[in-house]
Amino acid sequence: MKLKYVSTLVVSCFIAFSAVANNAPNFDDEDLKVAAQLRDKALDSSLDYDIVESLTTEVGPRMAGTPGDAAAVKWGVAKLEELGFDKVWTEPVTFPTWKRGVESAEVLSPYPQPLVITALGFSVATPEGGLSAEIIEFEDLEALKAAPADAAKGKIVFIKNRMERARDGSGYGPAVAARGQGASEAAKKGAVGILIRSIGTDSHRMAHTGVMRYEEGITKIPAAALSAPDADLLENMIRRGKPVTVKMTIGAKNGEEYTSHNVIGEITGSEKPEEYVIIGAHLDSWDLGTGALDDGAGIGITVAAAKLILDLPERPKRSIRVIMFANEEQGLIGGKAYAEAHKDDIKNIITAAESDFGAGKIWRIDSKVKPEAIPAVKQMADVMAPLGISYGNNNAGGGPDLIPLRGKGISVFSLRQDGTDYFDYHHTPNDTLDKVDPESLKQNTAAYVIFAYLSAQMNGDFGTGFNQK
Amino acid sequence: MKLKYVSTLVVSCFIAFSAVANNAPNFDDEDLKVAAQLRDKALDSSLDYDIVESLTTEVGPRMAGTPGDAAAVKWGVAKLEELGFDKVWTEPVTFPTWKRGVESAEVLSPYPQPLVITALGFSVATPEGGLSAEIIEFEDLEALKAAPADAAKGKIVFIKNRMERARDGSGYGPAVAARGQGASEAAKKGAVGILIRSIGTDSHRMAHTGVMRYEEGITKIPAAALSAPDADLLENMIRRGKPVTVKMTIGAKNGEEYTSHNVIGEITGSEKPEEYVIIGAHLDSWDLGTGALDDGAGIGITVAAAKLILDLPERPKRSIRVIMFANEEQGLIGGKAYAEAHKDDIKNIITAAESDFGAGKIWRIDSKVKPEAIPAVKQMADVMAPLGISYGNNNAGGGPDLIPLRGKGISVFSLRQDGTDYFDYHHTPNDTLDKVDPESLKQNTAAYVIFAYLSAQMNGDFGTGFNQK
Repeated sequence: MKLKYVSTLVVSCFIAFSAVANNAPNFDDEDLKVAAQLRDKALDSSLDYDIVESLTTEVGPRMAGTPGDAAAVKWGVAKLEELGFDKVWTEPVTFPTWKRGVESAEVLSPYPQPLVITALGFSVATPEGGLSAEIIEFEDLEALKAAPADAAKGKIVFIKNRMERARDGSGYGPAVAARGQGASEAAKKGAVGILIRSIGTDSHRMAHTGVMRYEEGITKIPAAALSAPDADLLENMIRRGKPVTVKMTIGAKNGEEYTSHNVIGEITGSEKPEEYVIIGAHLDSWDLGTGALDDGAGIGITVAAAKLILDLPERPKRSIRVIMFANEEQGLIGGKAYAEAHKDDIKNIITAAESDFGAGKIWRIDSKVKPEAIPAVKQMADVMAPLGISYGNNNAGGGPDLIPLRGKGISVFSLRQDGTDYFDYHHTPNDTLDKVDPESLKQNTAAYVIFAYLSAQMNGDFGTGFNQK
Repeated sequence: MKLKYVSTLVVSCFIAFSAVANNAPNFDDEDLKVAAQLRDKALDSSLDYDIVESLTTEVGPRMAGTPGDAAAVKWGVAKLEELGFDKVWTEPVTFPTWKRGVESAEVLSPYPQPLVITALGFSVATPEGGLSAEIIEFEDLEALKAAPADAAKGKIVFIKNRMERARDGSGYGPAVAARGQGASEAAKKGAVGILIRSIGTDSHRMAHTGVMRYEEGITKIPAAALSAPDADLLENMIRRGKPVTVKMTIGAKNGEEYTSHNVIGEITGSEKPEEYVIIGAHLDSWDLGTGALDDGAGIGITVAAAKLILDLPERPKRSIRVIMFANEEQGLIGGKAYAEAHKDDIKNIITAAESDFGAGKIWRIDSKVKPEAIPAVKQMADVMAPLGISYGNNNAGGGPDLIPLRGKGISVFSLRQDGTDYFDYHHTPNDTLDKVDPESLKQNTAAYVIFAYLSAQMNGDFGTGFNQK
């Protein structure tokens, strides 16, 4: 009896192991070799940088719903066609728009001097002629929430929390809540306006914009960010103990509904053309900079990676789609539109990765795949090892525009970039081409081409059914 | 004969040597000891930083002729009185004024996008509604000068020369000529406007202002600086070979004549009160930043150094004057006014040094003194040696506001600061308190207190009659 049990167990184990060994996704040696060649070609090419240079020079700022948005879509189609993608098309993406108007602020008393601010995306305007009120300071959003009901009555709330610098950008999440929810929380305490310390890690005199949302049923008050030096200045004034009165003027307003487009370029697979790998980035930017880091770099990296595959003598087995997502900044609208438009076809998406964290080098690859596919991911990571990239974990997010697709179950990868400096420039006028290091960009492209090519060639699949709601 | 000659020579040499030894300026050992104690006290005090914080917070921008100028003078008098100077007074300084108005620019074609500019000081306005013209690019001012007479007819000149980064700021001189003379040189070639690459070493999206001058008899055309990333952008557009048309709008204008004041605080000497040492900095700033580095740091350093001497149990032998010069930025007006007002009393100025190069550490002390005084300067430098400061040479300039006094023959010192980063912030909105390193400031104050105290105590003098025209 005992023996029989052991024997059965051994046999069962053997069967289980064989099953894994036989069905586990993997890569042909030849494909691994080609991936390594593509990696080395990427390190030799400046196409990625040239694409970012082209986008930032010929289009520049391209906030959703502006003429720059339309110019970017036109640019994207032309660029993909020029590079010889097998298919190039656009898909409509419709959204509400917001227009930045005048924006200024100044301390009226006790120490009159100007302040550098920028309106947060979707802020309402101040009354004509500006809004003047005393400042009330809060350490952070939590302190504001904890304050008594009329704590800020008639005042302008100032939230002074500072974002922490980190390679993985992990300081952003805790800090950014003040931007997203601050206005409605301040209004609940009776405030007439809100100024937050910019969500950023720099100390330059430029304020960081970014989207905010008003809570349903709460008075909408104008919301803006102060540059870090101006937030310091306000703190220093407040510390002196006299009431500090500030005037803020914001001329922002909501615009008409607008239809932009996701721009898609396809390398059509030779064996299973209906199955495809997604790589991509978002094509829109904020209006203040030229969107070189956010997300011109991602466009350059993913388009250049695809171009290396286009230049191979043969098409890969599966298709590869480069998606330039519309309007990520104001609510992942392009990503949502893609997921909705392709909801009946989700099973054909082999996997996906978006580049949207600037131009810093990739240091880690994370996956969200079925457990049996992890050995294959590690094979992929081995090809990336000479780039200084190692395998991390199986908790990848994939990128903001992939959240809606993730919600429908697709596997994703995160090629994690060094974002130590990313939030120095993020959503400011300072997001310009000079911040993009061409060598780092090549390293990114090398990693993406490995990812895209091997995923298109793999034996087996990465699984599906993840993150489904 | 031969012997007699030798003997005479020996005697002559002996006499000459004795004369030097007897009359050569020097310091008592006790004074050198006190100087070392003052140095160490300076390293323990944050008064210098507190003064910069006070000036930038309570006054902020203080461009000559603005309400900030008046507030700064009031602040300066109050600060010197509060610190217990023996005498505090002001002397009038009268000058023409200039007001910055609106300023904006954009590329109209072929790639419409905004540009970040700032008007140069004393630029005229563009016509109402802005000035639109094709750009013509020049490598530098020399290339513009060498161009044919109508090379820029009807166009906006763009001078793209880049300032080199250097510890001693030596890149500034060659680069800044484009700012000072560019407009008139461009007008001579028929230009209707001029844009220069900012005279700075940074790559941030802020333009550097600074004064320019129109040549007599030449058409005055509007002049502005582009931020470095915008200059890059324009270069990248021009390289594509299509005509680039830019619209620039400048609303600047000249104002009324204004009278500001040099603010002077004196420590009155105990033995020779009529003789005095000058230390100082300029109180005005440009309007864009809060003038923390230019020249709040100099104010903080020199006032804090004097305060350490005020706190000694006895007054020094000679007087020490801290001068906060008015309107340095628009033509050394405060320095000229001081030299003119005190022209009959120049012989009483023992020596002088101005701090006007930001907040970087001092690495060298240079003098402009009579040769016999150089050993004394080296004694002084020895007290500074623990600060990392060594003696340089006898070609000191002394600082911009001392140029007019130098013209009248006074000896001067240059306590040379590390200016590697200074031109990253110079004349931009980014010249704010966060750029001031408190520890570097202490090192500066330590050097200035040694200089001021020993100069006030010295036996003999540094000589006079230098740099006279």
